[in-house]
Amino acid sequence: MLIGHQSWKFSTRPQILSTAVVGGPFEAQGPLAEDFDILHGDLLLQQKSWEQAEQMLLHEACDKAIEKAHLTKDRIQFFLSGDLMNQIISSSFAARTLASPYLGIFGACSTSMEGLALAALLVDKQCARYVMTATASHNASAEKQYRYPTEYGSQKPPTAQWTVTAGGAAVVGAVEAAANEAVDGSVIDPIAKDEETKGRLAVTSATVGRVVDMGLTDPFNMGAAMAPAALATIEAHFRDLDVGEEHYDLVVTGDLGKVGAKILGELMVRHGIHIPDDRYADCGLLIYGDNPAVWSGGSGCGCSASVTYGHLFRELRRGRWKRILVVATGALLSPLSFQQGESIPCIAHAVAIERDGDTP
Amino acid sequence: MLIGHQSWKFSTRPQILSTAVVGGPFEAQGPLAEDFDILHGDLLLQQKSWEQAEQMLLHEACDKAIEKAHLTKDRIQFFLSGDLMNQIISSSFAARTLASPYLGIFGACSTSMEGLALAALLVDKQCARYVMTATASHNASAEKQYRYPTEYGSQKPPTAQWTVTAGGAAVVGAVEAAANEAVDGSVIDPIAKDEETKGRLAVTSATVGRVVDMGLTDPFNMGAAMAPAALATIEAHFRDLDVGEEHYDLVVTGDLGKVGAKILGELMVRHGIHIPDDRYADCGLLIYGDNPAVWSGGSGCGCSASVTYGHLFRELRRGRWKRILVVATGALLSPLSFQQGESIPCIAHAVAIERDGDTP
Repeated sequence: MLIGHQSWKFSTRPQILSTAVVGGPFEAQGPLAEDFDILHGDLLLQQKSWEQAEQMLLHEACDKAIEKAHLTKDRIQFFLSGDLMNQIISSSFAARTLASPYLGIFGACSTSMEGLALAALLVDKQCARYVMTATASHNASAEKQYRYPTEYGSQKPPTAQWTVTAGGAAVVGAVEAAANEAVDGSVIDPIAKDEETKGRLAVTSATVGRVVDMGLTDPFNMGAAMAPAALATIEAHFRDLDVGEEHYDLVVTGDLGKVGAKILGELMVRHGIHIPDDRYADCGLLIYGDNPAVWSGGSGCGCSASVTYGHLFRELRRGRWKRILVVATGALLSPLSFQQGESIPCIAHAVAIERDGDTP
Repeated sequence: MLIGHQSWKFSTRPQILSTAVVGGPFEAQGPLAEDFDILHGDLLLQQKSWEQAEQMLLHEACDKAIEKAHLTKDRIQFFLSGDLMNQIISSSFAARTLASPYLGIFGACSTSMEGLALAALLVDKQCARYVMTATASHNASAEKQYRYPTEYGSQKPPTAQWTVTAGGAAVVGAVEAAANEAVDGSVIDPIAKDEETKGRLAVTSATVGRVVDMGLTDPFNMGAAMAPAALATIEAHFRDLDVGEEHYDLVVTGDLGKVGAKILGELMVRHGIHIPDDRYADCGLLIYGDNPAVWSGGSGCGCSASVTYGHLFRELRRGRWKRILVVATGALLSPLSFQQGESIPCIAHAVAIERDGDTP
């Protein structure tokens, strides 16, 4: 139900039944490589275009997530997906293959948590038993659409970010649904069957962000543009849920990168939010570590999706943390809005995830 | 709650508190001109670009809908919006101005009913008191982005459709919320105050569509591509809700146009669905009447939104019908997916609306 002004609390604790993440060759060389389910050595993923490669990332993440949840495609009642491609074609093509009822969503790089928030809501309100949400981005398809073909070799400033080549999917379901089905024999509790998911994860609340636009216009510095949106959503979440910064073992932003994370740190202090360094992280900084080739860090729909559904959820299940808040950030610009001199509207959606039960 | 495979039944009967529609000069000459709240004589709406004109359609529709509901912007708890522009910038800029928590959605021309379905769900499940959903399209911005600048004067086949220049917005709220607020004095029942809304409208159910792709590739014949998606959603709705074709006084499709509506008629007969001619309509045929200049009919996000939120809801309130089913159709292609030889994935989302209380 609605809590405060813009948050939902999920009393039935919708469960993350499974997640799957798929990455490209550059992600395979990064520090989180072990957290991917599938890694590709070929940036084209044996497809004919970058766009088809992006679709493949999404397809594979969805298929793998369904497999890990021990479900079949026809059990997925709703598929919520979005991506950076014009008219979110990667998602629509994935929805065509899945053949599940489909709700297209868009929040740029915040799409991952917009999808997870809505998926949890549908399950919490008994509007569905199983919902899958997914998103993906591909470095070359994003460069081609938003900037220049990579073959041009255009230079970028150090504030720029590197679009992550990855797809991530999560299957959300009710604990009751899984248990009931075990009784009627159709499915043995899908959660219990998966060794990896011994530490059960529940989606406990979500905060839907407002658009924040501080007038910044530089698409090569989206971290700076997005930092105030992250702050606004973190503040709103703490206010709506009536919790303090000590409530979460980790607050992780989507893809602010070095520049944006530094700005957010300063903004939080000014707004009286004190999160120690060891309890704050940014997906854009985690995915490639200190690699200077990515300038300020990673970005793209696949960034927060792959880091959250892969690395963060694995560590959460292993017992490293009890509860985390994922604040996925998105820059809602288009190449055309930039060309027409518009500033960059930004948003951040937050989802809280808790480990249920004993540490494995 | 979930009914059948892909439908939701809204037991609390979320109310349409207000709707507003804004149109361009061509729409002002059409047979539904009287159903618009605002009509512009200038296709640019005094803006500097077609894209800004589209944003203005959305802005004005939202402002007018909030005004008609006797609310203020800050009372809108969630804003659900999407459009045809790359990265749905029209919606993101509208969300920036509104400053409401924002969920970006995309279903091409089906966006109107995707938004209304989710808005009703949020209200029904007490996840919000007031939700606004909106969408818009602009003929010139769509032509520029999807096809050629209109100045080229490129010819089109008779199966093509004319993108509607219009925006539509709806404010959905709980009856209880309105009543309670009247008691605590902050708002006098917003519904009762508006003479126009004497016939109260409730959103009673919704069916989320699956992607249907029959392999058609011609973006100048989207009616034919979308007709099977409309059929699939109508069949799913009747099955899930356990109702027959006689249940609705009117079944209206989004924007199939002449070609698509004819195909849907044939498909329905083959599938045993018999809807008499006087109980079926198509928004793409209603908006411009028999004007041959629009080839097969109207289309675009603004088509089903303006016809439904303007004409259909007005007639419903006046007592012409008791209950209608709006099946908004969308072609989920992009110019790039077409250029790469992909077929056109299509979808349709259905929302049922009933008049509550006495006919005014």
